[in-house]
Amino acid sequence: MKTIGVIGLGVMGASFASRLSHKGYTVYGFERSQETLDIALQKQIIQKGTTEPKTLLKECDLIIIALYPTQILPWIRQYQQTCKDKAILMDISGVKSNIIKPVQAILREDLELISIHPMCGRESRGIQFSDETIFDQANYIVVPTDQNTPEAIELAKQLGVILGVKNISTLSIEEHDRMIGFLSQLTHVIAVSLMNTHENAHLVEYTGDSFHDLTRIAEINEDLWSELFLLNKEILLDETDQFIASIQHFRDVLDQEDAEEMKRLFIQSTKRRKLFNR
Amino acid sequence: MKTIGVIGLGVMGASFASRLSHKGYTVYGFERSQETLDIALQKQIIQKGTTEPKTLLKECDLIIIALYPTQILPWIRQYQQTCKDKAILMDISGVKSNIIKPVQAILREDLELISIHPMCGRESRGIQFSDETIFDQANYIVVPTDQNTPEAIELAKQLGVILGVKNISTLSIEEHDRMIGFLSQLTHVIAVSLMNTHENAHLVEYTGDSFHDLTRIAEINEDLWSELFLLNKEILLDETDQFIASIQHFRDVLDQEDAEEMKRLFIQSTKRRKLFNR
Repeated sequence: MKTIGVIGLGVMGASFASRLSHKGYTVYGFERSQETLDIALQKQIIQKGTTEPKTLLKECDLIIIALYPTQILPWIRQYQQTCKDKAILMDISGVKSNIIKPVQAILREDLELISIHPMCGRESRGIQFSDETIFDQANYIVVPTDQNTPEAIELAKQLGVILGVKNISTLSIEEHDRMIGFLSQLTHVIAVSLMNTHENAHLVEYTGDSFHDLTRIAEINEDLWSELFLLNKEILLDETDQFIASIQHFRDVLDQEDAEEMKRLFIQSTKRRKLFNR
Repeated sequence: MKTIGVIGLGVMGASFASRLSHKGYTVYGFERSQETLDIALQKQIIQKGTTEPKTLLKECDLIIIALYPTQILPWIRQYQQTCKDKAILMDISGVKSNIIKPVQAILREDLELISIHPMCGRESRGIQFSDETIFDQANYIVVPTDQNTPEAIELAKQLGVILGVKNISTLSIEEHDRMIGFLSQLTHVIAVSLMNTHENAHLVEYTGDSFHDLTRIAEINEDLWSELFLLNKEILLDETDQFIASIQHFRDVLDQEDAEEMKRLFIQSTKRRKLFNR
């Protein structure tokens, strides 16, 4: 990794650029907004930046694509002819199946896309909210396919080490999207739906930790998450349906005043949750 | 308040006794378990204790009943004839309608029940988990009815001040049980149902803050919460049905790939949740 290009200097891209610059790497920033580039240059989180990818792109050995998910394929289609020979591309998107497969289907022969997912997003948008310490506690997942070379997979893992993440693991596309569908997307669907259940502003002063913790993620970037949900639609629908069946069962048990089954459900949830205690 | 009796030295009762003793009040403990009484005496969180209520009960001016909800009415029925003339009784249970009304219907003429709810429970059980600092950050709610005297209502508020709670407010029975049904009980139904959606032990290593925060309360005392849910059944069923309708709507919007409605729902949840930020 001699020169790293970061495509998009939003909250995630700028956090990548910042950490990699501070680790001594040469980082070039690619942004449509000159104002964002100016901030990045002033903060010294990139060494060079441009609104016109073609000028600097051919110098980059590694290209980290930190665009909104639906922008990834169009960007690669438009600029891959400008990329350096044998450059490695990485996407960092939160869902994988509908990102990786379309890109690999059109990718220039000598280029390689290796997919990573550092699980450390932020709800706030823009370079002003970037923060390189978000990687410190992150789970970092490498999502290889049979199109990837051992060298690119190794590079992706090595990037996790350089970023200083807490934990590096490898999942298949299907394992990744299923895991994300349950642990991350379904929890956001729940928090959003709870806040939307009915008007609740009059309850603010009575809130305890339970409600506060459960709804924290109901503050959500609507543009990003609507893309992520639609790109993982089938899995998320399935997970949501399973959850609705679970809560509907609980509701029916309560309606029938079946205290024994209610206790069994509490004991099961307690037992399962204990495994997640840190 | 000269002498305070605490009925039941579980995690809540012992926390009350501890704080009130340390504030200089004379506190007597009433417990079926001699072992628990011995611990309470040894820790000096009560001055006297007994397994036989009749001996000390007639000395208590204020009686704080920290029993499981369904035990409150039987206890009062059995022991009210032993209470001191004009003693004040307080229950601390998490639901009110089906506690207060039955008690007030059978209560001795000169006694008075004034209901309080310090929102600071713990999932762990027993005196060994008692902790008087749980009151420091608590919302403390007084739930008077038209059977209560101004003096008893004032005493209940004064007790909140002595306990050192964060915030004291007053709600009617109906307002209280509706608020608890949404903010506390529904959130527990959701967390429990999410953990019970399907087996998930293999996902432990990938968990981020979202899932962790949302499921914390899925570790639950099955005996206490099955009572609380059944005592607030009609309201909790209604809140749960409203939530299921909300998440079902989200599911259908996703299924129809209606990105605009999805964004509207995200924007609404974000706006509502911002009010709850501390």
